[in-house]
Amino acid sequence: MSGTVVALDCMGGDYAPGEIVKGAVEAVKENRNLLVKLVGKEELIYEELSKYEYDADALEIINATEVIEMAEAPAAAIREKTDSSLVKCQYLVKHGEADAMVSAGSTGANLVGGHVIIGRLKGVHRPPLAPLIPTLEGVTLLIDCGANVDARPAHLLQFAKMGSIYMENIVGVKNPRVGLVSIGTEEEKGNALTKETFPLLKEAQDINFIGNIEARDIPAGAADVVVCDAFVGNVILKTYEGVSGALLKKVKSGLKSSLKSKIGGLLIQKSLKETLKGFQIEEYGGAPLLGLNGLLVKTHGNSKAVEIKNSILQCVSFKEMDLNEKFMKKLNLR
Amino acid sequence: MSGTVVALDCMGGDYAPGEIVKGAVEAVKENRNLLVKLVGKEELIYEELSKYEYDADALEIINATEVIEMAEAPAAAIREKTDSSLVKCQYLVKHGEADAMVSAGSTGANLVGGHVIIGRLKGVHRPPLAPLIPTLEGVTLLIDCGANVDARPAHLLQFAKMGSIYMENIVGVKNPRVGLVSIGTEEEKGNALTKETFPLLKEAQDINFIGNIEARDIPAGAADVVVCDAFVGNVILKTYEGVSGALLKKVKSGLKSSLKSKIGGLLIQKSLKETLKGFQIEEYGGAPLLGLNGLLVKTHGNSKAVEIKNSILQCVSFKEMDLNEKFMKKLNLR
Repeated sequence: MSGTVVALDCMGGDYAPGEIVKGAVEAVKENRNLLVKLVGKEELIYEELSKYEYDADALEIINATEVIEMAEAPAAAIREKTDSSLVKCQYLVKHGEADAMVSAGSTGANLVGGHVIIGRLKGVHRPPLAPLIPTLEGVTLLIDCGANVDARPAHLLQFAKMGSIYMENIVGVKNPRVGLVSIGTEEEKGNALTKETFPLLKEAQDINFIGNIEARDIPAGAADVVVCDAFVGNVILKTYEGVSGALLKKVKSGLKSSLKSKIGGLLIQKSLKETLKGFQIEEYGGAPLLGLNGLLVKTHGNSKAVEIKNSILQCVSFKEMDLNEKFMKKLNLR
Repeated sequence: MSGTVVALDCMGGDYAPGEIVKGAVEAVKENRNLLVKLVGKEELIYEELSKYEYDADALEIINATEVIEMAEAPAAAIREKTDSSLVKCQYLVKHGEADAMVSAGSTGANLVGGHVIIGRLKGVHRPPLAPLIPTLEGVTLLIDCGANVDARPAHLLQFAKMGSIYMENIVGVKNPRVGLVSIGTEEEKGNALTKETFPLLKEAQDINFIGNIEARDIPAGAADVVVCDAFVGNVILKTYEGVSGALLKKVKSGLKSSLKSKIGGLLIQKSLKETLKGFQIEEYGGAPLLGLNGLLVKTHGNSKAVEIKNSILQCVSFKEMDLNEKFMKKLNLR
């Protein structure tokens, strides 16, 4: 077929295989130009599929007898569990039998396997993991949140370029603003890495670099592409999760503090819950690992069908917009 | 006198000199064993003081004709504005004419002047700035958030020790739990800095090291002393501020989304505001710059009288508990 082929790790995530398979059924219903290869224990996948009506040509089952658990050491798991759903998805992408893969399984195993099995696109130093995080203005791409700690300036320059292409083509932000995370907005503020990276981003002709941004300004939507090394990206992502989670708890208990606030709480419950939920990282799932020979979309461990569906459809856009071709072109311009 | 002498920068901060002077009046009312030296433009300080009744022996005015603005380059400001309130406070501490100082002025000028004018305690590599941040369990000391980017493992070990003494003696947390910020809880997770720091903290006999913590767990109160280099500390602090500020805005607009939620919103307004306010960094003001020959407490730029008062009283505890003596003892144990 000429459409997009997506390998789906049906055994990864808290709600596997039920919600994962459901997400695939919903995706192929929404997009007819799509084949999803459901990888995992076939008897379990059959059982889930039997609950739905679907176009049999759009879903294919590939048996995989093993499962990589969240707590396993990533490198060993990738090496030893060659018949796991996660590793099998990665080989499907590597061998061109799938354009992309989606997994809610172990982040570590996905990252390691992404590098080792799928492999990097020619010219890419390090493939960054780039989740979309919520802001008051919409979403921002936080690049990198992967395993590439101790990055070098040249890596961050590539992150800025790939991130810009992604935001422009997949999220639809025209001329996305690129900000470099630092501890002050002035060029001379920062650590050794950011000070060396700043001039590289400033000189790059093909990105819209707006300078340093402070982490405080990210939630307000100060930049569309937020560039940092993976350690810092991880800290931002986790602080986001932690603070919004803690606030949600605090607000809930605060509403129980008086009779007046209890009554008020009942009236606003729904709207408040939706408001705060919209600011939780998990809602956005689907972080792409960019710069691979193919695409790997890592969704949150607690992903339900809707995130799986959105991640699969994201793979379709990625293929149809020919993003890897665009990456190669932009990265080799220098 | 045998009590504590505190130099107060009356010209620093958004509400100077009004709220600053008011904070001093309240502090000397609450603690009789205290002398506050009010440093700034004397005519303005006199004018503010005329609004209150106070013990004239507990407040002394020291004229300073210059003011360091927030936007000024710190090093140049410190060098050139020798008759500024901020620099004069620092010289009072340096010359032993004050035990400590409090300033809501420029963070940069306070940090630079702290190092250059007041000077480091013998044996201290780098004085860390250590704000208290709110958690679901109370407060946590985030050490370091200062200007010491690109720190070395030996610095982080000192931060852990000084932070532990501070939390135990000033905040009253027995045997405070020390966590190292990393991107995973396992010992081998992290960047070059955290991987080298981990064994140093593990071997230290005189701190209660609980291992790596992820930024996600800080707001829940996973550790009492959170150790990191200043770049990461800054990112955590600013993300905290940004996310809680953005959520507050979002909740407010969410409450206007329907008539039902509008009515409910009126009923819960007060309790919600208090709940969310309690999670905003600014409320805690008073970040000590530790490891100096004396103490410098930097309060938030928008500090009002209550934060100034609390910061002054914090200086009293610091002196009475003989914290610098305790630091010296602990740091030289190795």
